[in-house]
Amino acid sequence: MADGASNTPSSNAQSSGQSNAMWGGRFAKGPAAIMEEINASIGFDKKLYAQDIAGSKAHATMLAAKGIITEADRDQILKGLDTVLEEIESGRFEFSRKLEDIHMNVEARLAALIGPAAGRLHTARSRNDQVALDFRLWVKAEMEKTAQAIDALILAFLDRAEEHADTVMPGFTHLQTAQPVTFGHHCMAYVEMFARDKARVLHAIEHLDESPIGAAALAGTGFPIDRHMTAAALGFAGPTRNSIDTVSDRDFALEFLSIAAISATHLSRLAEEIVIWSTPQFGFIRLSDAFSTGSSIMPQKKNPDAAELVRAKTGRINGSLIALLTVMKGLPLAYSKDMQEDKEQVFDAAESLELALAAMTGMVRDLTVNADRMRAAAGSGFSTATDLADWLVREAGLPFRDAHHVTGRAVAAAEAKGVALEALSLDELKAIHPDITDAVFSVLSVDASVASRTSFGGTAPAQVRQQIAWWRTRLAG
Amino acid sequence: MADGASNTPSSNAQSSGQSNAMWGGRFAKGPAAIMEEINASIGFDKKLYAQDIAGSKAHATMLAAKGIITEADRDQILKGLDTVLEEIESGRFEFSRKLEDIHMNVEARLAALIGPAAGRLHTARSRNDQVALDFRLWVKAEMEKTAQAIDALILAFLDRAEEHADTVMPGFTHLQTAQPVTFGHHCMAYVEMFARDKARVLHAIEHLDESPIGAAALAGTGFPIDRHMTAAALGFAGPTRNSIDTVSDRDFALEFLSIAAISATHLSRLAEEIVIWSTPQFGFIRLSDAFSTGSSIMPQKKNPDAAELVRAKTGRINGSLIALLTVMKGLPLAYSKDMQEDKEQVFDAAESLELALAAMTGMVRDLTVNADRMRAAAGSGFSTATDLADWLVREAGLPFRDAHHVTGRAVAAAEAKGVALEALSLDELKAIHPDITDAVFSVLSVDASVASRTSFGGTAPAQVRQQIAWWRTRLAG
Amino acid sequence: MADGASNTPSSNAQSSGQSNAMWGGRFAKGPAAIMEEINASIGFDKKLYAQDIAGSKAHATMLAAKGIITEADRDQILKGLDTVLEEIESGRFEFSRKLEDIHMNVEARLAALIGPAAGRLHTARSRNDQVALDFRLWVKAEMEKTAQAIDALILAFLDRAEEHADTVMPGFTHLQTAQPVTFGHHCMAYVEMFARDKARVLHAIEHLDESPIGAAALAGTGFPIDRHMTAAALGFAGPTRNSIDTVSDRDFALEFLSIAAISATHLSRLAEEIVIWSTPQFGFIRLSDAFSTGSSIMPQKKNPDAAELVRAKTGRINGSLIALLTVMKGLPLAYSKDMQEDKEQVFDAAESLELALAAMTGMVRDLTVNADRMRAAAGSGFSTATDLADWLVREAGLPFRDAHHVTGRAVAAAEAKGVALEALSLDELKAIHPDITDAVFSVLSVDASVASRTSFGGTAPAQVRQQIAWWRTRLAG
Amino acid sequence: MADGASNTPSSNAQSSGQSNAMWGGRFAKGPAAIMEEINASIGFDKKLYAQDIAGSKAHATMLAAKGIITEADRDQILKGLDTVLEEIESGRFEFSRKLEDIHMNVEARLAALIGPAAGRLHTARSRNDQVALDFRLWVKAEMEKTAQAIDALILAFLDRAEEHADTVMPGFTHLQTAQPVTFGHHCMAYVEMFARDKARVLHAIEHLDESPIGAAALAGTGFPIDRHMTAAALGFAGPTRNSIDTVSDRDFALEFLSIAAISATHLSRLAEEIVIWSTPQFGFIRLSDAFSTGSSIMPQKKNPDAAELVRAKTGRINGSLIALLTVMKGLPLAYSKDMQEDKEQVFDAAESLELALAAMTGMVRDLTVNADRMRAAAGSGFSTATDLADWLVREAGLPFRDAHHVTGRAVAAAEAKGVALEALSLDELKAIHPDITDAVFSVLSVDASVASRTSFGGTAPAQVRQQIAWWRTRLAG
Repeated sequence: MADGASNTPSSNAQSSGQSNAMWGGRFAKGPAAIMEEINASIGFDKKLYAQDIAGSKAHATMLAAKGIITEADRDQILKGLDTVLEEIESGRFEFSRKLEDIHMNVEARLAALIGPAAGRLHTARSRNDQVALDFRLWVKAEMEKTAQAIDALILAFLDRAEEHADTVMPGFTHLQTAQPVTFGHHCMAYVEMFARDKARVLHAIEHLDESPIGAAALAGTGFPIDRHMTAAALGFAGPTRNSIDTVSDRDFALEFLSIAAISATHLSRLAEEIVIWSTPQFGFIRLSDAFSTGSSIMPQKKNPDAAELVRAKTGRINGSLIALLTVMKGLPLAYSKDMQEDKEQVFDAAESLELALAAMTGMVRDLTVNADRMRAAAGSGFSTATDLADWLVREAGLPFRDAHHVTGRAVAAAEAKGVALEALSLDELKAIHPDITDAVFSVLSVDASVASRTSFGGTAPAQVRQQIAWWRTRLAG
Repeated sequence: MADGASNTPSSNAQSSGQSNAMWGGRFAKGPAAIMEEINASIGFDKKLYAQDIAGSKAHATMLAAKGIITEADRDQILKGLDTVLEEIESGRFEFSRKLEDIHMNVEARLAALIGPAAGRLHTARSRNDQVALDFRLWVKAEMEKTAQAIDALILAFLDRAEEHADTVMPGFTHLQTAQPVTFGHHCMAYVEMFARDKARVLHAIEHLDESPIGAAALAGTGFPIDRHMTAAALGFAGPTRNSIDTVSDRDFALEFLSIAAISATHLSRLAEEIVIWSTPQFGFIRLSDAFSTGSSIMPQKKNPDAAELVRAKTGRINGSLIALLTVMKGLPLAYSKDMQEDKEQVFDAAESLELALAAMTGMVRDLTVNADRMRAAAGSGFSTATDLADWLVREAGLPFRDAHHVTGRAVAAAEAKGVALEALSLDELKAIHPDITDAVFSVLSVDASVASRTSFGGTAPAQVRQQIAWWRTRLAG
Repeated sequence: MADGASNTPSSNAQSSGQSNAMWGGRFAKGPAAIMEEINASIGFDKKLYAQDIAGSKAHATMLAAKGIITEADRDQILKGLDTVLEEIESGRFEFSRKLEDIHMNVEARLAALIGPAAGRLHTARSRNDQVALDFRLWVKAEMEKTAQAIDALILAFLDRAEEHADTVMPGFTHLQTAQPVTFGHHCMAYVEMFARDKARVLHAIEHLDESPIGAAALAGTGFPIDRHMTAAALGFAGPTRNSIDTVSDRDFALEFLSIAAISATHLSRLAEEIVIWSTPQFGFIRLSDAFSTGSSIMPQKKNPDAAELVRAKTGRINGSLIALLTVMKGLPLAYSKDMQEDKEQVFDAAESLELALAAMTGMVRDLTVNADRMRAAAGSGFSTATDLADWLVREAGLPFRDAHHVTGRAVAAAEAKGVALEALSLDELKAIHPDITDAVFSVLSVDASVASRTSFGGTAPAQVRQQIAWWRTRLAG
Repeated sequence: MADGASNTPSSNAQSSGQSNAMWGGRFAKGPAAIMEEINASIGFDKKLYAQDIAGSKAHATMLAAKGIITEADRDQILKGLDTVLEEIESGRFEFSRKLEDIHMNVEARLAALIGPAAGRLHTARSRNDQVALDFRLWVKAEMEKTAQAIDALILAFLDRAEEHADTVMPGFTHLQTAQPVTFGHHCMAYVEMFARDKARVLHAIEHLDESPIGAAALAGTGFPIDRHMTAAALGFAGPTRNSIDTVSDRDFALEFLSIAAISATHLSRLAEEIVIWSTPQFGFIRLSDAFSTGSSIMPQKKNPDAAELVRAKTGRINGSLIALLTVMKGLPLAYSKDMQEDKEQVFDAAESLELALAAMTGMVRDLTVNADRMRAAAGSGFSTATDLADWLVREAGLPFRDAHHVTGRAVAAAEAKGVALEALSLDELKAIHPDITDAVFSVLSVDASVASRTSFGGTAPAQVRQQIAWWRTRLAG
């Protein structure tokens, strides 16, 4: 897509004298056809049209301000670029693969519209800094959208967390019931994860917030340009500081991909829980019809398709990350054509993440919670055994190790009798350890267990509500 | 794309009661729009139309042969499917995203064309085994094309190897000149690599050569079908042996991707060499115009764009491999919707590999070798020092360690004098070790060095020609 | 680890004149310490000691047979190497990091043991072909062990499949109950997967079955060696055919890693099922104590640690695959030092796979099946609805679409009544469609459903038993 | 390594009744041996000993401050932990694999040293929050070290940049000479890259700067702990806000790995340049002996081993990133044993990055620049053609397109004559375009070209010196 000078496909590519016989199938037309197919980027980089035109407008305005082009030329260029923009957005623009990329497509059309002035737009710039600018502007805008999409998902979780701050469910480790928690508390765990993703996105925007334009091919330029002016016009904090790095750098793309991969990992964990919780065996939740598919033959059946597809997007995004890391490995400075492979990976990952966040926001908003199934599961498996042990430490003064031993015997007794811990009688408990009193029953129910976990960040409903409030304030701020 | 029963998107997806306000941007239409976007596969799986229709024809023929449908129904179905095929290939078919995937698109059109008989085609099969069949047929055909594309590249190398069996160039380790070799020998190294790729492809075809159709949703069927008959009709060695595995398995896709990744690694090594050898500093080769881009301003400049793009495809293919490995990780049997992400990765990797192989075949055929630059480089750096040491061992009977010591002194002497090893006089050499005779000069030139390496697989031109002949026989056979 | 000539760390590395101040922490000793740490491979490549010694013995024997060294030298070398081997295996050998790698460690010890003859061993070979040989021998042996480990796992599954050929369980799609299958049938799905892994392993052994020794540094040698003789002595099918490729090639490592990644993917799917099935909510299976951890406080609790750890190994192996693919990307021929990173990835992946296969074999052998829970789950969710639809097509001659419609109404009726499909009365069914007869009840139970799926590879117990028998014969053969 | 309660390996693991025959090789001892091997983490997590002890000390201090344990217990615990620390650091501690992990090893030794008080240390915490704390502390400290290591590398570059602010070299695109730049400018491109890496590291430290301890198993605790106190004691900004997330979260590890992968990508690009520039064909630089290996036989030969090994570390780090992303994919909350695979990946990547940064700092400091070779290369290939075109636009008022056309003809004339552009006479130039004047020669030399590129971030020596000064101030600040 880019190089230091304005490149032209070699004119004699068509006449390389190869007979067609050796080029099978789709490459029957020989080297020229292969080269066009491997080389052209317009098929995907047309997505950058708005950035390309905005960059050119800022560049033209600066060139005129510095007296490098005339104001008349500037006015023609700006008007012409607006026309091109309008043509593209209205679908009337004809993209040409012969013109290779979005930059040449726009430039050629501009030349057709305004004549020689178009040629002056390319003064003091190169395709190398132009593509760096366009792509960086796109990634920056995409990350701003990502931050908003994350906010929407966080809000959905805050609403559900508030609604279910008291809804008891099993807290799992190893997918085995460990201790009772609340569904609101579980929702808030995801708020933390996605808030970290957003923090990373905002910092990544800071990291890329420098304008590449004016680095030219790789060495800067001798024209008296003002890179701070174009940077400001395009909303950047300032210009990049080294022209070689500017055209070689794709950190912003790699950083976006790695943030997306971590966020997709969070989404995959949530998706996995949705799939498992939607089984008849768990029955904790029911997805809305909008995000499931059913069966014409088994009307009760609901497949959690949307959750499965979100889970799968992790693979796709991890793949894009590895793809670009591999492409960039070992590339000498400055620009190499390998870097043309950067855009499709970022576009695909961005679309996947956007879609996955939207789908998950929808699922979270719409899903139905079966609080009875959750509570029943929370109460099984002697999930309050830890509470009994803690009580023995706290109230009866037993060392931790002894408390565990006593608890194990109580659980065994309950299991033998086929009842829950709190269904053992005081006498039965006293037979296990004489210091146990009536007061113990206040910690053996799941509600008591949950209510007792009042440490900062704990599952007690009051704690959960406090965290919800904190996040609401923060999001509003 | 697939499930055990014929799924229908939930009818009330449109009426989920969500206000549009909370769905920003492209998802303004709410859950239904998101679900359609994340769920539909027709955008990419239409690529499977030919496989889908071929599979349906084989299935219908078998159903009739076993008396499960009538011959009249079969005839209608076959005729209708031919019409659908013709419509698609002529570009008149209208794909519908509402119908989700290629299977439903074809089936709906068939129903419109032939009425109720279309409904009988789906007897004793399911979308699950149908998609497994279509995809497997596609991957098998693609691997057959890959094997042919590799053959074309190998032939290109055999031709260049033959032409340059005597062309001396430096053999590198650590990108430093180590010993002289021939360019023909270097070309033959790539023949070995790509031949291994081909061997892997052919074995992978064996591994997938079983027909999925008839596995139905996941449990097989009670209809008296003949899976051996459909397998034979579709060119498979036989039917798969376990219906659950059949609809869960994507090994054939993973195996293709891993083979493609290894082959792309070979291509990247070759591409790297082309990029380095095309620099003015090396100047060993010159790519044809067809595979370079030039500069309007620097007519002598040639950028090896095609080689750089081939090198970058490695990243893309590694990414696809990791994507699908990640998707498949931890999926419970049998079919999960996550698996819908399999096709785009394989399609993209297949296209990248195909294009990279074709571009490289073209580059190898067309490139110009600068034999003088190669020879000059081969002769610098005292590249025949090893030959001197070997001569001392072989002819003068020195132990290896002593021979190395003597050689080091000879090289130092030549370096001090600023000449090549063979430009030292016999007297100078005798001063270093008295057993050196006139005969030593026969091993100190690069041609002598190369000619002497006659061990099996060595760089001696006779050896190289023998390997070329062996490969030509093998490819012809 | 390797290069074309016998390299020596530069003698003045120690005296580079750097003050220590600028090298913080562990690198306080400056460049020499850093270089030793990044360069030495003995820490991991000592694992290749047996291969290194076997290769040297074969090489020495051939050198003597061809008259390149004397029989006396050969005898000393062989005896010395046996001593070194014995020293290493008995733990008395002192590995030295100064000597960098296993080759130099062995060689230096041999020289100390037998004197000058040791120096003649290195005639007509190089560290480059030596390391290629050692590593290839190791990978080959590892793959042979992998094939055996897979056999053990397959046998474990065959035993459990036989035991449970009639044990009905739900067949899942999207982790929702779809149709009844048998646990034996489900086990056999894994037999298919692991058998494919084994087929890939056996073919990979074929692909690497060529001896590198004699390729020397990269160009072959002028000594009259017999590479077919060493190849045969080391159990290879023959020698490699191109000396440059021989020292550049790590395909065998990449192929092993990609096969391991696919096999680990299978293991992760099985592990996921074990984790889910071990939840109290599913309760399908119970791992043995040996492969779980419990809780001192909740004696009934069992965490499926071994399954989780096996699942996690997928990540590790995928990581190793990507690591080596990335290392090899874009390396010019022949040997580059980057390739020293090959071994740790392969060693780690091999150990992970070996351990995961062993752990899974143990889990499969030892786990307890709760057939009652499986059967109960299989019978819920109207899992035989498809059987009803098929009956309507087959026996009542309804078109598929109509049959589905009728079935949907029957399921709705059963759901409304809160009963299973087969608990509807004939009258109730006739009210839905008059052609339904008493005979329909024969397909509505899970046992009938399972028994009816007699298509090749279907879930009918007779089919499953047939597949078990086929695999037993094949494994025995 | 961790679970909600203190787990004990099942006591009857030894007696599972399996005969040893079926467990081949290293697993001959059966399930117990396999489980110990797959389960124990002490082999790698002993690296966390200092963090584990620091965390326990902070926890004990807080427990006493809140009256949960006595001051006497606290004193014993602190004293005992100091003893354990001292034992470990002096190498006298015996790590036991039976005790599985670092936490149990320390705890068991503490119990042996101080008796029952040791048991009270575990009040209100769990192995889940303990491992989260230890690992987070380790990663935080490692990132602080990384930031320092990056500073050292940046300083090395600033020194070399200053030294070579006027040293002209070719600026490359596609590894072809494009325009002259200075070596100082090229060095400063790397300063920008590594400074971005550092910015990411510092932000990542912010993202993880919350204390996990007190989250307990997953639900928080009922003991009246003060998590802000322990957070402050351990140097965190505050406690985490959600206990479920706290024990489920490994974002800090993933973020470190992704930052390391991007930084390794930068290192690989630099390494590639070092390898290429060290070839005799380029001859731009010479690595010091400390970072090369030589050949006993070819004393002039220098292999850039250290650069190659640094380049290869990219693969290793990318592999670790993918490994942990894959492990975390789809894990339900809260803790799963899969997460035990987190540490080895991070430890290995951290060590690789640390080593690669140190090696590269050494190489940059020590390498010798061949300014003559650089200048000669910069002057070849008509690298100032762009300067001529810019002059024609700026001084002669030609439109860009015409300027390019004229320049192309001038280059062709010079090429035909076999001279550089500036060696054409004024008459010859005037023949090409009459508006060319004597003044043009002031832009045709490489020095003039470089000096003219005064745009912000451009290659003009004054610009480069300004950037060096800016960075020095910033680093000092």
